[in-house]
Amino acid sequence: MATKVVSNLKEAIELAKVTDGMSISFHHHLRNGDHVLNMVMDELAAMGVKNLTVNASAVFDVHAPLIDHIKNGVVTKLCVNYMSKGIGTHICKGIMDTPVEFRSHGQRPADIENGRTPIDVAFIAAPTSDTMGNCTGKMGKSRFGSIGYAMADAMNAKTVIVITDNLVEYPLTCASITEDYVDYVVAVDEIGDPNGIMSGTTAQTRDPVRLRMAQTAVKCIEASGLLKDGMSFQTGAGGATMAAAMYLKDVMLEKGVVGSYIVGGISTASVDLQKAGCFRALQDVQSFDLGAAADLLENPNHIEVSGRRYSSSIGKSSCMNNLDVAMLGATEIDVDFNVNVHTDSNGIIMGGSGGHTDIAEICNMAVVIAPLFRNRLPIVLDHVTTVSTKGENIDVLITESGIAVNPRRQDLKEKFIAAGLNVKDIHELKAMAEKICGVPQPAPKGDKIVGEVFGHWGEHVDYIYSVPDKE
Amino acid sequence: MATKVVSNLKEAIELAKVTDGMSISFHHHLRNGDHVLNMVMDELAAMGVKNLTVNASAVFDVHAPLIDHIKNGVVTKLCVNYMSKGIGTHICKGIMDTPVEFRSHGQRPADIENGRTPIDVAFIAAPTSDTMGNCTGKMGKSRFGSIGYAMADAMNAKTVIVITDNLVEYPLTCASITEDYVDYVVAVDEIGDPNGIMSGTTAQTRDPVRLRMAQTAVKCIEASGLLKDGMSFQTGAGGATMAAAMYLKDVMLEKGVVGSYIVGGISTASVDLQKAGCFRALQDVQSFDLGAAADLLENPNHIEVSGRRYSSSIGKSSCMNNLDVAMLGATEIDVDFNVNVHTDSNGIIMGGSGGHTDIAEICNMAVVIAPLFRNRLPIVLDHVTTVSTKGENIDVLITESGIAVNPRRQDLKEKFIAAGLNVKDIHELKAMAEKICGVPQPAPKGDKIVGEVFGHWGEHVDYIYSVPDKE
Repeated sequence: MATKVVSNLKEAIELAKVTDGMSISFHHHLRNGDHVLNMVMDELAAMGVKNLTVNASAVFDVHAPLIDHIKNGVVTKLCVNYMSKGIGTHICKGIMDTPVEFRSHGQRPADIENGRTPIDVAFIAAPTSDTMGNCTGKMGKSRFGSIGYAMADAMNAKTVIVITDNLVEYPLTCASITEDYVDYVVAVDEIGDPNGIMSGTTAQTRDPVRLRMAQTAVKCIEASGLLKDGMSFQTGAGGATMAAAMYLKDVMLEKGVVGSYIVGGISTASVDLQKAGCFRALQDVQSFDLGAAADLLENPNHIEVSGRRYSSSIGKSSCMNNLDVAMLGATEIDVDFNVNVHTDSNGIIMGGSGGHTDIAEICNMAVVIAPLFRNRLPIVLDHVTTVSTKGENIDVLITESGIAVNPRRQDLKEKFIAAGLNVKDIHELKAMAEKICGVPQPAPKGDKIVGEVFGHWGEHVDYIYSVPDKE
Repeated sequence: MATKVVSNLKEAIELAKVTDGMSISFHHHLRNGDHVLNMVMDELAAMGVKNLTVNASAVFDVHAPLIDHIKNGVVTKLCVNYMSKGIGTHICKGIMDTPVEFRSHGQRPADIENGRTPIDVAFIAAPTSDTMGNCTGKMGKSRFGSIGYAMADAMNAKTVIVITDNLVEYPLTCASITEDYVDYVVAVDEIGDPNGIMSGTTAQTRDPVRLRMAQTAVKCIEASGLLKDGMSFQTGAGGATMAAAMYLKDVMLEKGVVGSYIVGGISTASVDLQKAGCFRALQDVQSFDLGAAADLLENPNHIEVSGRRYSSSIGKSSCMNNLDVAMLGATEIDVDFNVNVHTDSNGIIMGGSGGHTDIAEICNMAVVIAPLFRNRLPIVLDHVTTVSTKGENIDVLITESGIAVNPRRQDLKEKFIAAGLNVKDIHELKAMAEKICGVPQPAPKGDKIVGEVFGHWGEHVDYIYSVPDKE
């Protein structure tokens, strides 16, 4: 029998001939429970490899050892779609000579495919793989559901190494990445910690402010005229946006509306809507919880999509092209509707576009749900610290104290007013926040560029600057 | 709602900007029932386009109008994996200035991907497609099952046009080719004639000679030592090879052997073996009958594979790499075990490698099943008219009068003799045939090269020559 299984990670890395200056890649479906990025980087550091580019769809606080690998010259460039604050804080201290490149979930696969960010060796964490590298995230003790973000890596990297903690006999019949793209398979004890895999995305909120905003969001959808048969919907991982899904279900059932699909990160709330008959299908690039992961394996109308098919500009179309309504988050939004999801109010990196900019760019009605203030810091500002998504692509802002509509969408504004919704000018919302919290100081801004933000089409959107040490 | 549906084929062709000298492609899953190649070529001819390369995974007699398009200069080059005799007869008259390029099912996708035969516009006949081009062969009135051979076309052509007779609402959840690869969708009345789609592949033979050879084949598998848990198996579409599957089932059930997979063209006979528990999985690049097509939609252990994953040398591995036993056909085989599946005993093109050369190149035991003679013409010769598959890759020849083993496989010869099988030298089989039929005249050979045969790795294997007119 042919097999691609090698004895350990070191052997796979040696066979893949990873050398100084190469670009290696990782996916983030294991989120803050991922063990694979650290085990690979530790091995590479021990082997003395230097000057690597790490292209990871996202890095989380669990990946803190990256900081030392950066300081030691093992890693000299990062490309990510999202970076949690534990890593971001160090990056904002200016520890890298080359700015971190921030892409969207759609632009990352495009740049891997078009050669702007070619990958030498891709490391694919797979909850189940057979001996030839047919692998999936849908089964196994570390299952995470859709492996959509890793597909571009597998299909375009020169060398592909699958790392699994559930090696099964050939052929695996539910493979998402297939043997013709895989060079080596490594079996390890654990690719991740199940408690971290589903971290921070699933809890239904009980916060009355968030619930109220969620109810308002559903009223906006009703008023927009989009709540009709065939409607499609995207919701992110935040509490308010997931609560919106819950309220949407009630309204759709009451009105007998059958939508076409929910797309994106798919949660149990999305699965509930589909199973209740509110939507015909789920297009899943990332499963947000174990309920969604289990459903992906069993439900023929719950389908796994690649990042390319999900939201990329390199394809002939994506799931975005038919998207009616999207619920998005924001750490800041300014009076021009520019949204920041990269940095906090102190300018420290604590996130990234993910699909935000892709979704907003293409969908019919992009709705940002955000409170007027958090921790007594206003969210509505004159200028966001970092532009993640350009204001021209945001249609509606929902806060607990009123709804602002982008002047470009006069049509929506009129519909919302006609429906008796609490529409306000965005400057008015800003004034309300400032009345409560005071006028905020702009985030401190150092003079070193530590990050660059790219948009849906690969265009430059903004820079992220170092944050000076507090006096 | 976004849509890629255009009003008719002509509009799609105009949008795709098909111009003189381009390369266009077709797949053959509709076989001799295909309407799409003819409707596209007629449209292109009417538009005055000239000098096209037609890259079709196979052409059948239903595509006879191609002959006129060749004579009129609309088509000046053909690349195929198989050509039926109605077309082949004309090609052998020397009507083309450029030889027809014959590839295998594995090499065609490789050369499309590596740029040796780039495709400008791919025409994908799809029994079901949604409005964005997510499409499948698993459903619809013209369903044919796996669409595996068309995947390389869809993924690599500059422009992709899906032609369907079952347009459904977005999103189709069982898509085999996805929207990110499709430019335009055209709805037509009928992409094919169901009677032709499944033509010539499904009938179980009752011919006692064929049944005897099939029984012998299964005895060879037993004697080889390969009949054990995990065994994998490939069978083609011929009567004897399909009968072998039937006998194999009895033996496997009797012995309680559970194989790993059957690969290739999958027939109802293969499905029966899998459902009976003889094999864990079916890897299906082409469904040979409606029973197999239906099973592909419903059976999670019956999976659709691309030509790349099936047998291509461009991937990191293929289904061939773990293949133990394959049953293959031959129109001729010579004393060096070279096999001809391209031309008949008169030198006229009437077939092609399909997967033959890929399978033989890689699998553990490649068994050719062929009678000693057909229509009083010996099948075992000194030299085959055309080398399709090199003798070094053929292990065993089974005829109704004895088994010949390639001298390279002394191990198998010894096992067969030990099992009491009727092993003969291949020269002995040749002599037996000649005793009955006489010594055959070599096929008449003209002086024009009308075809070139390429092998599994893309290497030159042989030329095909024109056939002089009979006096």
